[in-house]
Amino acid sequence: MVQIVKTISEVRDTVKAWKKAGYQVGFVPTMGYLHEGHQSLMSAAKAENHKVVVSIFVNPMQFGPNEDLASYPRDIDKDQQLCQQAGVDLIFHPDAGEIYAEDFCSFVDMTGLTEELCGRSRPAHFRGVCTVVSKLFNIVQPDKAYFGQKDAQQLAVIRRMVRDLNIDVQVIGCPIVREADGLAKSSRNSYLNAEQRQAALCLSQAISLGQQLVQRGERNCQKITSSMQSIITQQPLARVDYITIVDAETLSPIEQIHQSILCAIAVYIGNTRLIDNFIVDIH
Amino acid sequence: MVQIVKTISEVRDTVKAWKKAGYQVGFVPTMGYLHEGHQSLMSAAKAENHKVVVSIFVNPMQFGPNEDLASYPRDIDKDQQLCQQAGVDLIFHPDAGEIYAEDFCSFVDMTGLTEELCGRSRPAHFRGVCTVVSKLFNIVQPDKAYFGQKDAQQLAVIRRMVRDLNIDVQVIGCPIVREADGLAKSSRNSYLNAEQRQAALCLSQAISLGQQLVQRGERNCQKITSSMQSIITQQPLARVDYITIVDAETLSPIEQIHQSILCAIAVYIGNTRLIDNFIVDIH
Repeated sequence: MVQIVKTISEVRDTVKAWKKAGYQVGFVPTMGYLHEGHQSLMSAAKAENHKVVVSIFVNPMQFGPNEDLASYPRDIDKDQQLCQQAGVDLIFHPDAGEIYAEDFCSFVDMTGLTEELCGRSRPAHFRGVCTVVSKLFNIVQPDKAYFGQKDAQQLAVIRRMVRDLNIDVQVIGCPIVREADGLAKSSRNSYLNAEQRQAALCLSQAISLGQQLVQRGERNCQKITSSMQSIITQQPLARVDYITIVDAETLSPIEQIHQSILCAIAVYIGNTRLIDNFIVDIH
Repeated sequence: MVQIVKTISEVRDTVKAWKKAGYQVGFVPTMGYLHEGHQSLMSAAKAENHKVVVSIFVNPMQFGPNEDLASYPRDIDKDQQLCQQAGVDLIFHPDAGEIYAEDFCSFVDMTGLTEELCGRSRPAHFRGVCTVVSKLFNIVQPDKAYFGQKDAQQLAVIRRMVRDLNIDVQVIGCPIVREADGLAKSSRNSYLNAEQRQAALCLSQAISLGQQLVQRGERNCQKITSSMQSIITQQPLARVDYITIVDAETLSPIEQIHQSILCAIAVYIGNTRLIDNFIVDIH
């Protein structure tokens, strides 16, 4: 079975030995409770590297005071099995104390890209993401790192951080993986009861409609998001956090589509906050 | 003559070739206008590594709006000669645009260690230092990096950043180098006219007095700093910014000395802000 290590020094020693042997290292940072979305990242990492490291760490720093840190789902045994099946070579599963010393006081953050979208309702979220991803990159020192397009803002933020801070890692975004009925795979889907699970389909339905409108030539963002909004509004268990269209790289809001865009939504189903998105490349 | 390169990719290519050949790399980040203080860092780097990289970059991000960015002294030809004499293997001398893209928006910062001492009068200074040093570490990827003890708070901040963010670089602090009459070497000494140069001796005199008092057993910080203050006050061209004794690691102010301490001062001589310090290791 694939080895689980809990200390930074074990990861470093293993990876340094691999690099000395000339191996290329792929890295998939996760918060565990792995699903097919993560499996697609692990497959991509396995296909493109000699060795694959997966980190499983529910990062306290990226959760707000009223968010679901304590209840976030965990199942390390099943995660280990899925990593084994995916051909992962090492799992880094540290305790919080290994990552954050008691007098920890440094952080990585951003003045752009983080205020809009999820940044509005989760103000310190991306500081937590940037800080932990920086740390994990420094610990694992991978050649390539794999992130899901489902967390579109996170992916854009990490790409920018890597560019701005000259981090020597190639960031690779992988497509959203969906359930058969369209719901984007997420560890947080496990929070949903049967009725909520059905209601949650309004996200992918709205995404699908928005995508069709753009494909048919609609360029007015207000018209697109209004149509998407009406799908969510029809669902009594759903409450919109945001539905927005932004520049795919800068994440600045736009009114008319002339460039590559990210259309992203966040919707509460009961107390569970779910996100989904699509990207259209226009050149 | 030692080569000067201006692009990140040239540094990366050179260092990667060295690492492939099994060489250990030492790094001395500077703002140029090199003096004997920098030379001592280069010597230490040369003695402990196969290859030495020096960066020369006056980092705009660490200067406040009313500080001396434009007038900061520069002499790249003399710097190159001094690097050549010191056996440096590569100089990285980028333009600001190579380091900061127009839409640069990421940063590294700290919630502790940076508020006291120089952080009071230079509020965004250490954000600029942490960000550029992170970037330079990611670009050069040295095994060891050398910093002067003269910038004591900077050294403590960088040590903490390296620890907190798991940066795989060994940080080495080197002793303060002084002029024959005691003045700590600094590129900013070049701002002083003859009269100010004489007045500036009050810094090292105060430092020397403070050090003697601690050595003779004085443990009351207020008494020590008052005695030091009176030396500065006697000098009409001098104006105290701060004289303070802090815990050497956390930089928290203390009243009685029971631990290793940093005693640091910042004094304006005319418009020139100079700093000096001493450390006492008590175990």
